[in-house]
Amino acid sequence: MQGLSEAAGLVGTVAFAATAVLAVAPRGIDLLTACVMGVLTAIGGGTVRDLILDQPVFWASELSVLWVSLLASLVTFYAYRLIARRRVVATLLYLDAVGIALFAIQGAAKAWWLGFGLPLGPILLGVITAIGGGLLRDVLAGRESLLMRRELYAIPVTAGCMGYAALMAAAPQLGNLAAVLCIGLIFGFRAAAIRWRLRVPDWFRLEGDRPEP
Amino acid sequence: MQGLSEAAGLVGTVAFAATAVLAVAPRGIDLLTACVMGVLTAIGGGTVRDLILDQPVFWASELSVLWVSLLASLVTFYAYRLIARRRVVATLLYLDAVGIALFAIQGAAKAWWLGFGLPLGPILLGVITAIGGGLLRDVLAGRESLLMRRELYAIPVTAGCMGYAALMAAAPQLGNLAAVLCIGLIFGFRAAAIRWRLRVPDWFRLEGDRPEP
Amino acid sequence: MQGLSEAAGLVGTVAFAATAVLAVAPRGIDLLTACVMGVLTAIGGGTVRDLILDQPVFWASELSVLWVSLLASLVTFYAYRLIARRRVVATLLYLDAVGIALFAIQGAAKAWWLGFGLPLGPILLGVITAIGGGLLRDVLAGRESLLMRRELYAIPVTAGCMGYAALMAAAPQLGNLAAVLCIGLIFGFRAAAIRWRLRVPDWFRLEGDRPEP
Repeated sequence: MQGLSEAAGLVGTVAFAATAVLAVAPRGIDLLTACVMGVLTAIGGGTVRDLILDQPVFWASELSVLWVSLLASLVTFYAYRLIARRRVVATLLYLDAVGIALFAIQGAAKAWWLGFGLPLGPILLGVITAIGGGLLRDVLAGRESLLMRRELYAIPVTAGCMGYAALMAAAPQLGNLAAVLCIGLIFGFRAAAIRWRLRVPDWFRLEGDRPEP
Repeated sequence: MQGLSEAAGLVGTVAFAATAVLAVAPRGIDLLTACVMGVLTAIGGGTVRDLILDQPVFWASELSVLWVSLLASLVTFYAYRLIARRRVVATLLYLDAVGIALFAIQGAAKAWWLGFGLPLGPILLGVITAIGGGLLRDVLAGRESLLMRRELYAIPVTAGCMGYAALMAAAPQLGNLAAVLCIGLIFGFRAAAIRWRLRVPDWFRLEGDRPEP
Repeated sequence: MQGLSEAAGLVGTVAFAATAVLAVAPRGIDLLTACVMGVLTAIGGGTVRDLILDQPVFWASELSVLWVSLLASLVTFYAYRLIARRRVVATLLYLDAVGIALFAIQGAAKAWWLGFGLPLGPILLGVITAIGGGLLRDVLAGRESLLMRRELYAIPVTAGCMGYAALMAAAPQLGNLAAVLCIGLIFGFRAAAIRWRLRVPDWFRLEGDRPEP
């Protein structure tokens, strides 16, 4: 179980770094920018979570996260033509979905066990863990941030964290089961969004044709 | 006094969240983005302040801030047509002025009583507490940040925090009086700016027609 | 040695604040925005470093950094016409190079002596210390961030921090020598980039003409 979780974490880290390089590359980047964007995307969300929880920043003692995200950024940079192919990109998107599912619930669980602002705190920190790195990447690269796009990305994460908080409030002794269920829920929801190109439905949106008040 | 301050804090929180949703809505947002923007705008400034002061993040023990900002975001999203009317927006702007006045001086006072880098530290942290959440919102939404606009927003806040630091240095035993005076100063200055559409005067500016050096 | 380092730190602080005001001024700013941008650029990187290292934020006990950056911002604002001249700007760019060289190695050394995620942690934190404030300035001002430009800015910093980590791993007892050497390396590399307008070479880049995958 522990081993499986660590393996999934490394897969998610690779996917975060690689998709970050792919996302930023169309604007023209050098090797260093690729590495910085890859590493910051992989560690950014968890770093902000740990600062808010007043816990030691996770990558100081889990240095593999830095090495793996660095290596994934380098490989994506040098093998850009191979990796930017449609099939590889699609695979990376699904692996990225593994990453956001795992990191969201890990973040929510860390906050929950610390009793940090239950029940809203863990939901907020789970979302920050999963998408904080991507937001940082978008802001530094001058891209429209993922919060402003119609892609279903933050919504599956939030739904899963809300489900986790509800299950933990109902049955805290089944923590592991709740975690596995909600990781599955986020991954399934996000994978469906990738597979069928689902977008945020209109009834869930305010349209942007209104003048700024 | 304590009760009044808490009531004003909730009013400010509601106004921060509601104006954030109104500011971002013209770009087209979904319900989740509205909630995230509303909550981050309400808690962002105080969170950065607490991290810098190395104090526990305030909303972990004041969970009402999360609930209230979440609720205000939801209501603003679903009642957008009602709330985006001129009268309601104007009212919200004045309530937002209550919020920045209160949060600025609360932030400056927290830093002052911790003896954090007197006298400049409390001024800087007061400004960060009041406008940090709005800056985060602007950056994540891809809007021009409030520091780059001609609206009189950060200037009243800074003037009030400077006044507070001066009064505290002169007469620390009159802390409560200084706080009340400077909250009034910020609110009055900002309310006048809203009422008469005051803008940063030219003699206080460098014009933007210069080539980048 | 200590005195020399402090003097160089103040020179770097002045240069960070002044170049920040120069960089943002073409968009039109008021006096307050100039001061905020100048101060945040000077202290931003070191602040993020200290938060991640869980150390007290450096400027709370080194208040001179706030005063000096504030003063430099004020002078640059009011003497804009004098300071925006080509000769003065060129001088400031070289002084800024002194600043990034010194702050990068100071940041890396602080992380190294705390044993923070060796050897990658000190490299990452050195880079964050040197360029974090500039990134914050670019994001708040809505400029293209320095990571996305072809200027050789982050690359000399990273090369110097990597060299420092390598020297410290090989011969930790020669820490001061390693620091001096790597400060010289960053400054020399960056100064050459300014002098001969070096840009990131093509073999180190991915061109931006690719469609976003």
